[in-house]
Amino acid sequence: MELTLINGRPGGHVSVQDRGFQYGDGLFETLAVVKGTPLLWERHVQRLFRGAQRLRIAAPAEALLRREAQTLCADADRAVLKIILTRGISERGYAVPVNAMPTRVLSLMPWPDYPAHHRTQGVSVQFCTTKISRQPALAGLKHLNRLEQVLARAELKPECSEGLMLDEQAHVIEGTMSNIFAVVGGKLATPDLSHSGVAGIMRDIVCERAAALALDCQVKTLTREDILTADEIFLSNSLIGIWPARRVESKEYPLGQLTLRMQEAIRDAHGAG
Amino acid sequence: MELTLINGRPGGHVSVQDRGFQYGDGLFETLAVVKGTPLLWERHVQRLFRGAQRLRIAAPAEALLRREAQTLCADADRAVLKIILTRGISERGYAVPVNAMPTRVLSLMPWPDYPAHHRTQGVSVQFCTTKISRQPALAGLKHLNRLEQVLARAELKPECSEGLMLDEQAHVIEGTMSNIFAVVGGKLATPDLSHSGVAGIMRDIVCERAAALALDCQVKTLTREDILTADEIFLSNSLIGIWPARRVESKEYPLGQLTLRMQEAIRDAHGAG
Repeated sequence: MELTLINGRPGGHVSVQDRGFQYGDGLFETLAVVKGTPLLWERHVQRLFRGAQRLRIAAPAEALLRREAQTLCADADRAVLKIILTRGISERGYAVPVNAMPTRVLSLMPWPDYPAHHRTQGVSVQFCTTKISRQPALAGLKHLNRLEQVLARAELKPECSEGLMLDEQAHVIEGTMSNIFAVVGGKLATPDLSHSGVAGIMRDIVCERAAALALDCQVKTLTREDILTADEIFLSNSLIGIWPARRVESKEYPLGQLTLRMQEAIRDAHGAG
Repeated sequence: MELTLINGRPGGHVSVQDRGFQYGDGLFETLAVVKGTPLLWERHVQRLFRGAQRLRIAAPAEALLRREAQTLCADADRAVLKIILTRGISERGYAVPVNAMPTRVLSLMPWPDYPAHHRTQGVSVQFCTTKISRQPALAGLKHLNRLEQVLARAELKPECSEGLMLDEQAHVIEGTMSNIFAVVGGKLATPDLSHSGVAGIMRDIVCERAAALALDCQVKTLTREDILTADEIFLSNSLIGIWPARRVESKEYPLGQLTLRMQEAIRDAHGAG
């Protein structure tokens, strides 16, 4: 199973002149697909469009994207839909061409083979030495400049399923592929992403569902110490839903009540079953 | 004139699964080609190899790259050779595949149509509001994560030929496509690039040729104030050689003696004629 539409046509290749390849000049989204349906479609598309607006990339019509996604996903029981939107082809040089024609790539990919116990029993996590850079102009965006995450991911010890990235000011920002939540005294907290990081769709869902349960969820600065003294830690993204962290470095955490409650609260919103 | 070799074969497209496209997981070099010869070949290849070592991307043999470059450049009187090296194709996810087969793309591109007076009379320059992020793990490398430069370049006023980027600590780092030198009291200075920026080949040449002329060239922290109070300012890269800056924001500079002397000293090393 590997199906790709490039600007609506089946294919697997893009021009070497595409600015996605030349400069990482674009954005992406990763959606869980369950029984033919990409989950949280509206939210993912809205984030893509907000990103495109910030980067001044012309966004395709939502109806067009939806039709292409439906074509790809119709027969998929459980899969991943990845959408890439780049500024398109240009001549050499950073200057944005006046009439750039964006490139959109929709790919249906296999569901990742994460063990089920990552979600039910939790995972071990480490701090990465690779820092995440502070860049307000790109913060929040799911853009194609991901070398930092590649380097951080390469640091992971075999027993760790995720690595946490800190910025130069020693603030914990996120995991290489997930957002992080800490539980302290019955309250949730997740890092402020105004200088770095990807504002995850599942992070939004967790915050909203927590509010609906009258649980306090603060967006704030979190340090390594905050993580290591928290009562519970969990990770979120659109594919994994929520993974409890049972260990960060040498600190162990219980399979906490609030983590389990939030897992239950987002049960409908992710692909992890 | 647009010739491309992908892993040695003529072509113009790469897989959408290439990590260059997915994550900007790769490096590039831009060489001036004059009368069939890529200038400063050894230096560019050595920088590419050092970058590959830092990112742990397997580098191709130098002889292979050289043969391919010769094939492309043989008939070019004046052109640009761009080399891209990516980590190659992988499945979705940041994890580096164990046996990644790097992708190398060599493209011969048209010589840019910069007016000759940019070099002889100089250019106007502005400060960009887009910051360059601090990231020691990537500093110095000519990597494919270039969204900051794209955003900064898009800020340029029509009368400006280059924009200067500062980091979060208000240090001037470089132009969007060039390195910067300041002349103060008969001495050269260029920004320290240990936290941000591309360590330009022409920047190295300028420093070396200055030393050969017994001219002091310091690598140091430079602020906006240092730029605006300098006697002379110039920009360098492998294609332009040296462009005198005659104006930065509202500050004007003469066509300085040291800039002219350095232009003369590097005359053989760039493609600008």
